[in-house]
Amino acid sequence: MKIWQKDKAALAEVDKFTVGKDREMDAFLAPFDVLGSLAHTTMLQTIGLLTADELAVLQKELKQIYKEIQEGNFVLEDGVEDIHSQVELLLTRRLGEVGKKIHSGRSRNDQVLVDLKLFLRSELQALVQEVKSLFDLLQQKSEEYKDRLMPGYTHLQIAMPSSFGLWFGAYAESLVDDLTMLQGAYKVVNKNPLGSAAGYGSSFPLNRTLTTQLLGFDDLNYNVVYAQMGRGKTEKIVSFALAGIAASLAKMAMDATLFMNQNFGFISFPDELTTGSSIMPHKKNPDVWELIRSHCNKLQALPNEIAMMITNLPVGYHRDLQLLKENLFPAFGVLKDCIKMTGLMLSNIRIKENILDDAKYQYLFSVEVVNKLVLEGVPFREAYKQVGLDIEKGAFAPEKAVQHTHEGSIGNPGTAEINKMMEDVLKGFNFVKVDAAIAALTK
Amino acid sequence: MKIWQKDKAALAEVDKFTVGKDREMDAFLAPFDVLGSLAHTTMLQTIGLLTADELAVLQKELKQIYKEIQEGNFVLEDGVEDIHSQVELLLTRRLGEVGKKIHSGRSRNDQVLVDLKLFLRSELQALVQEVKSLFDLLQQKSEEYKDRLMPGYTHLQIAMPSSFGLWFGAYAESLVDDLTMLQGAYKVVNKNPLGSAAGYGSSFPLNRTLTTQLLGFDDLNYNVVYAQMGRGKTEKIVSFALAGIAASLAKMAMDATLFMNQNFGFISFPDELTTGSSIMPHKKNPDVWELIRSHCNKLQALPNEIAMMITNLPVGYHRDLQLLKENLFPAFGVLKDCIKMTGLMLSNIRIKENILDDAKYQYLFSVEVVNKLVLEGVPFREAYKQVGLDIEKGAFAPEKAVQHTHEGSIGNPGTAEINKMMEDVLKGFNFVKVDAAIAALTK
Amino acid sequence: MKIWQKDKAALAEVDKFTVGKDREMDAFLAPFDVLGSLAHTTMLQTIGLLTADELAVLQKELKQIYKEIQEGNFVLEDGVEDIHSQVELLLTRRLGEVGKKIHSGRSRNDQVLVDLKLFLRSELQALVQEVKSLFDLLQQKSEEYKDRLMPGYTHLQIAMPSSFGLWFGAYAESLVDDLTMLQGAYKVVNKNPLGSAAGYGSSFPLNRTLTTQLLGFDDLNYNVVYAQMGRGKTEKIVSFALAGIAASLAKMAMDATLFMNQNFGFISFPDELTTGSSIMPHKKNPDVWELIRSHCNKLQALPNEIAMMITNLPVGYHRDLQLLKENLFPAFGVLKDCIKMTGLMLSNIRIKENILDDAKYQYLFSVEVVNKLVLEGVPFREAYKQVGLDIEKGAFAPEKAVQHTHEGSIGNPGTAEINKMMEDVLKGFNFVKVDAAIAALTK
Amino acid sequence: MKIWQKDKAALAEVDKFTVGKDREMDAFLAPFDVLGSLAHTTMLQTIGLLTADELAVLQKELKQIYKEIQEGNFVLEDGVEDIHSQVELLLTRRLGEVGKKIHSGRSRNDQVLVDLKLFLRSELQALVQEVKSLFDLLQQKSEEYKDRLMPGYTHLQIAMPSSFGLWFGAYAESLVDDLTMLQGAYKVVNKNPLGSAAGYGSSFPLNRTLTTQLLGFDDLNYNVVYAQMGRGKTEKIVSFALAGIAASLAKMAMDATLFMNQNFGFISFPDELTTGSSIMPHKKNPDVWELIRSHCNKLQALPNEIAMMITNLPVGYHRDLQLLKENLFPAFGVLKDCIKMTGLMLSNIRIKENILDDAKYQYLFSVEVVNKLVLEGVPFREAYKQVGLDIEKGAFAPEKAVQHTHEGSIGNPGTAEINKMMEDVLKGFNFVKVDAAIAALTK
Repeated sequence: MKIWQKDKAALAEVDKFTVGKDREMDAFLAPFDVLGSLAHTTMLQTIGLLTADELAVLQKELKQIYKEIQEGNFVLEDGVEDIHSQVELLLTRRLGEVGKKIHSGRSRNDQVLVDLKLFLRSELQALVQEVKSLFDLLQQKSEEYKDRLMPGYTHLQIAMPSSFGLWFGAYAESLVDDLTMLQGAYKVVNKNPLGSAAGYGSSFPLNRTLTTQLLGFDDLNYNVVYAQMGRGKTEKIVSFALAGIAASLAKMAMDATLFMNQNFGFISFPDELTTGSSIMPHKKNPDVWELIRSHCNKLQALPNEIAMMITNLPVGYHRDLQLLKENLFPAFGVLKDCIKMTGLMLSNIRIKENILDDAKYQYLFSVEVVNKLVLEGVPFREAYKQVGLDIEKGAFAPEKAVQHTHEGSIGNPGTAEINKMMEDVLKGFNFVKVDAAIAALTK
Repeated sequence: MKIWQKDKAALAEVDKFTVGKDREMDAFLAPFDVLGSLAHTTMLQTIGLLTADELAVLQKELKQIYKEIQEGNFVLEDGVEDIHSQVELLLTRRLGEVGKKIHSGRSRNDQVLVDLKLFLRSELQALVQEVKSLFDLLQQKSEEYKDRLMPGYTHLQIAMPSSFGLWFGAYAESLVDDLTMLQGAYKVVNKNPLGSAAGYGSSFPLNRTLTTQLLGFDDLNYNVVYAQMGRGKTEKIVSFALAGIAASLAKMAMDATLFMNQNFGFISFPDELTTGSSIMPHKKNPDVWELIRSHCNKLQALPNEIAMMITNLPVGYHRDLQLLKENLFPAFGVLKDCIKMTGLMLSNIRIKENILDDAKYQYLFSVEVVNKLVLEGVPFREAYKQVGLDIEKGAFAPEKAVQHTHEGSIGNPGTAEINKMMEDVLKGFNFVKVDAAIAALTK
Repeated sequence: MKIWQKDKAALAEVDKFTVGKDREMDAFLAPFDVLGSLAHTTMLQTIGLLTADELAVLQKELKQIYKEIQEGNFVLEDGVEDIHSQVELLLTRRLGEVGKKIHSGRSRNDQVLVDLKLFLRSELQALVQEVKSLFDLLQQKSEEYKDRLMPGYTHLQIAMPSSFGLWFGAYAESLVDDLTMLQGAYKVVNKNPLGSAAGYGSSFPLNRTLTTQLLGFDDLNYNVVYAQMGRGKTEKIVSFALAGIAASLAKMAMDATLFMNQNFGFISFPDELTTGSSIMPHKKNPDVWELIRSHCNKLQALPNEIAMMITNLPVGYHRDLQLLKENLFPAFGVLKDCIKMTGLMLSNIRIKENILDDAKYQYLFSVEVVNKLVLEGVPFREAYKQVGLDIEKGAFAPEKAVQHTHEGSIGNPGTAEINKMMEDVLKGFNFVKVDAAIAALTK
Repeated sequence: MKIWQKDKAALAEVDKFTVGKDREMDAFLAPFDVLGSLAHTTMLQTIGLLTADELAVLQKELKQIYKEIQEGNFVLEDGVEDIHSQVELLLTRRLGEVGKKIHSGRSRNDQVLVDLKLFLRSELQALVQEVKSLFDLLQQKSEEYKDRLMPGYTHLQIAMPSSFGLWFGAYAESLVDDLTMLQGAYKVVNKNPLGSAAGYGSSFPLNRTLTTQLLGFDDLNYNVVYAQMGRGKTEKIVSFALAGIAASLAKMAMDATLFMNQNFGFISFPDELTTGSSIMPHKKNPDVWELIRSHCNKLQALPNEIAMMITNLPVGYHRDLQLLKENLFPAFGVLKDCIKMTGLMLSNIRIKENILDDAKYQYLFSVEVVNKLVLEGVPFREAYKQVGLDIEKGAFAPEKAVQHTHEGSIGNPGTAEINKMMEDVLKGFNFVKVDAAIAALTK
């Protein structure tokens, strides 16, 4: 039997194992770490843990580092454990011992927590912009194709007349609800954990309200034990918000692959956006849609993955939490790519005309005809029977026009109202306040 | 090889298979189905599909049925397919043919959708009340035990002083964030799908805005295709809201089983609330906590279950959706039971005094002592070194008093602020409007 | 704030909460509990804890109770906690004090464990039979329709010729792999935990090898700590085995709803097995398939649910485990129903003839034509170019015959080989030994 | 509203999106792709699609490329789409046009399928070796510490005497069951999909039985439609096998963090394997265990992630499947690292002596004492009462010796039997046959 020796090589492996991809993940957090330090040092001076002079030099250099990060000139040097250490290293190289003072009254735990919150807040904000663009495109397509009829299916069986306008608009409205949930996540994120130290607070007389204001947070995570408990919980909530948007995109992608299938043949895309074959000219593989679907379904599994990793851990920090970054951090980029790809595909969609002329769709209109008779005064059962008989004897020849007038129907899709819903949700975010706080902190 | 015959017995089994537990699940929806019909019939009269006289008799009888349901005098009779049919049956029995008119301009699909939304809204409202009660208890315990110190752990290693006040308060604040997410779910729920028919709208000139107001919804699910698409999506979102609360309870349960463990020995409960053994007098099994944990972890798996059932279904109704009820509907009762049991346990908790007197906890205070020296002017590295040396030579004898003053710390737990956060979240629900609408509809 | 009182009503609720649905779940275990007791008492006598006379009366009565259970004449009486107590109650009622002796050398924990193992083993055995029946039907259909061509899709785009024979046969072969995994689960199940007591063994000189033989187990769960650790783990493994079969059925159900869709129109079913509408004569809703899909997708979520409930529980029994029964025990019945319904639908399937005559399928054969040219000696690139040109100028008129000869292809579907694979898997179960042991124990 | 332009930059992004991390993932498959080509070309010559000369030069060069891969001298060049293309490119560079002939009678789909199967088979084989090493270590520790008593817990309450020998041995036996499930996965993997082309077979007279033998597969995936259907299904099954091992490791890690906690204080590790603090000398953070737990819990979420990505996709290839590689391929490395770290930690574990001397553990022995009295002839209820009274009056002073003799108990842990179980499982893999086939193919 093998005895694993605790020799030098083994210890190097331990180091590699415990660091894992964390340095890579830390790169996502770099600018936010500096923001946290800008706020923290400002506060430290107000409680006498930094002199005004010390604060001045630290702030100047931190803003310089922030700028370097923004410009892509920041690297995590070999042998430096994480970005917190890298920032401190730069400060002490440039400023000497005073650089180390930025850690007073903070622990690694609340430093990571605040970085994480700021990162997530920023990513959620960026995501909202992307979703809004896609929403606008869907709404525009909804208007453009409001009279382009298509069969509506229930049980995947031809059922009632629908329109491409409704199809596009449905996904637009879906995104409104998705952003409603994302706003819930945003509110959970947008609270300040800084000052909770290792999850049990500090004996320094910190002013957490001040850092809350400086960082543009809506409120504090008051209870320091809860502030720590938010780790994992926050990531799960955010991942569910992402999963919601992902579910909408994945469903649309499923529809698209179906409607591109030659048995449906409702929609098509330029050759550059599909893959084909010169000897199978009908084949236009919807690879982009399939990959949107696949990425988005993978994103849908993320909340469960996070739950599996944190469930039944007792109160207090555990190193387990480090690994939550690995699938969550890249998820924002993946989702934004999927939104962009969906936008590109929809911007170039071609929709078949006169789909309903095909004989197989004529029974779509049977309910319409029954309803029309009812509105003319024929009792429902009578009308129903009459249309049934017409169909039976082959005498059913409906007018293929749809006159739906109620809210949200083919003739009255409610574009303005759905736009209004979106505007109302967007107002709830108050990004202006956050942007102003960050600008003030870094100017 | 077996050929399954399509004989009478087999067809009975098909019937049993397709009905499944749906009749049982329908019982949850009965009162809401009547509310939907009350609103729908009121609207039908305004567009000429019911006469004023017809409306009057239908409303009177629907209110009577509603009352019967409230009083527990409503049964789904044998051979009646579902509650929609049962209500219609009662109406036609009592009123004749006019009873059938309540279906004009509606399909089974949007009828179930509106029932579901009303049911979920009602359950969410009830859940919020339960959560608020537990929150209040936790806050009261947080105040009561704010000076009862306990060790705080990181990595499950003894780390820093904490308090039972903080522990209770952390879970109180956790519930605030949980209700923030639940409010997102509530907003998604609180929109009216009625009038979307089978998911493609109706050729009748329905007034969906009217039914929206009558049923106390905040808004419509405008787009009729989206209204149908909300099925499954809504359930998943609601289940995630439940899962959030469940996660808080499960984590507290995990802590409780650990703190009851004799190696910790921090908390205990009256014999009636634990199970024991006369020959193992130390054994007080935390069955209630374990079952809270288990139920709540099961609830945490629900969003994933729902996702698995609806993912990759193309647009439009599918019968698959029927089965979403089976785990979701009872989940509300389970979660409310878990809240109640948590409340009962916490109401009777006994907390050990002077826990920190035990020698193994003395190093808890080392960081405190370092910080104190720093505040007295000793440079941090100096202070750190000095304390380290004291510990090494066995001269470390800290005062076991904690003077944390910042927001959310042991000495300043922020009870008022956390209460305020809860109040702010509660205000966002606007239950008064809903209650008023339902009262008006059924009076 | 509400204080939950620990009054009589509350304690009754605690009782209700802790019992939950466990009495209901226990009904599944009743016969297996008696089997366990038959083996255990036989063993007790060999180590002197029962006299031969005591054993004789206990065995006689236990066999009588077993018979009553088989005949449906066993009830868990009101006020009796569980089936173990019910069995003991019956014994003491009928035999006096000796009835209590069946518990010597056993704890409730290993008693439940062995019941669970015997129950799962029995259910897995029954499931294998059902799967085998469906396999046989699929193979028969595969032969019957081996020449009925259909389009094969990749990316949901028309790609290559396929056949219904291949479609049926693919699902048959899928079940072989599903049973391979199920056999792994069966082997994990088929080991004896009896004698592990509360998870730490017993100071009685139990003969666990004897009970292993008596109960027809393949082996012991040796280590008593592991025997207890198997709880939860075993359920998760079994649920994954069920999920595998479920995934095969769900996928076939998805295909079926697609092929029944009128845009495909490949298959249909008698009216009795679909739901329709007299005014939409084309509509044959595939409710049975949709519910198979939905049930099976729910089953696919079960392993994750179980994982969520047991992850991060430290070694040793926890009451959490009780709740694993609730979704797992009924899952066997659900899956068997789904198999039966799949069998019924497939037994009555009607498959369209001459599907490929439709012009949209002609390019299916382009690859065939290229390959034919290659086999005639034309270099591949040449052949490819020639066919591409023919298509371009509208001169592509392929013979719509398929000559695939290799193993597993349209012309050589490998029915015998796949049957052989199934037979080989079935041999690995050795049900005969188990049946013999149970017969010996209860005769 | 934004219109996404289909310009050059956008098309480059489409390309980036569709390729994703696939090139990176392909690196895992490179050697297996060459093995597939070695078998395929050998077969092509037997059916006349390659001449003997062509075969000879192709084989020589393919073996050379295989060697280069083994030596780390193979790169996927910029602009080359995937490893299949890279291999072809190398062949044509070195051999001219004949290099392209390796694609005859194959499609990209079955080429990836066979690569995947060979890769998974190889990784599973390697994993079995790692698991076996850890098993051996656990068994050795089980023997070493068979007399080192510890408290056994139920409900996390002190319950019965246990031993560290049992604790180690339990995890050893757990790995046996994990390998049983892994063997099921291995059997599913070890079947040949080559020759299924795009999932509908080929009109070339392929000899699939020959490639099956050459590649050391146990059998074919006969049905070509099923061969394609195995994609996704196979990955899910394999991920479940990994998740099983991961669950065992994660549970042990949970135990370890608990036993290292100072309230338990049962085990400790050298400083180099924990992280600590000079002013908190008691703190030995179990970072390695926490990261093992976290990685392994993430692995446990993988089967569900894969299920989410493939559920409800109809029959036939979909591009979605590409993304399954991203979390699965690196999972093998992660799991092997976790096994290695577990081995390292366990190799250096220190276990406290005389744990049970602490007064709080004395009631552990109450059941022992009762049983002893029973064996001496005292009726159980009498014995139970007597011990209860002793405890009540403080007169309970048990001998702290444990005499458990039955199979799997403290005194008789069954090391030999559990070793035998492991050997039996290992025999079922038949790796020798596979190794011989690969050696023959590449020599």
